[in-house]
Amino acid sequence: MAIVKPYRDVPSEVVTDSEAKATYIRWLIGKKEGAPNFAMRLFEVEPGGYTPFHEHPWEHEVFVLEGKGKLVLEKEEIPFEKEYFIFVPPDEKHQFKNTGNSRLRFLCIIPLKD
Amino acid sequence: MAIVKPYRDVPSEVVTDSEAKATYIRWLIGKKEGAPNFAMRLFEVEPGGYTPFHEHPWEHEVFVLEGKGKLVLEKEEIPFEKEYFIFVPPDEKHQFKNTGNSRLRFLCIIPLKD
Repeated sequence: MAIVKPYRDVPSEVVTDSEAKATYIRWLIGKKEGAPNFAMRLFEVEPGGYTPFHEHPWEHEVFVLEGKGKLVLEKEEIPFEKEYFIFVPPDEKHQFKNTGNSRLRFLCIIPLKD
Repeated sequence: MAIVKPYRDVPSEVVTDSEAKATYIRWLIGKKEGAPNFAMRLFEVEPGGYTPFHEHPWEHEVFVLEGKGKLVLEKEEIPFEKEYFIFVPPDEKHQFKNTGNSRLRFLCIIPLKD
């Protein structure tokens, strides 16, 4: 069945990974909603916060909704802001950091594993 | 290689489907960019415009960036606006219509076929 909802109706959960700071996630569309192939999550990162600097064998497709940040990779750091899109290939070490004075908000889509 | 870009750097193409009206697409992330599993597109629909009323065996995961519209299904129409997310399951007939006075802009992610 089709789903049409404001994103704020989906609860926000703290990202409990010990290497993350001030980062929250909302699982908008995933297995529970009937998604067969990939999941849409919305991240919120407070000023000074960041996601873990980690790698995994799946990609990220990201769209920045609000705020400013940088993508930290092993050999470079790339700034981004609202309305940028970001592709992180599988197995590339990466981190998203809020470098602004307000909330950073982005969508991050990942494949669903079996 | 990671990609970090403003979405406006990606050219906008007219959706030439004869059942679409005043609809434009930007392919942000797809096979060419190295995406292995799914593609991120950004649609822009002018006031009065719409996507084709059609169905296909793959799902849509959508996030509304700007504007107002409705999702037309076979038996109902569901209004949405900025910051709504939408899931359209495979094989469900659907159409996105701009019902506002300004541009409707949304992301639409689909699986990549082999």
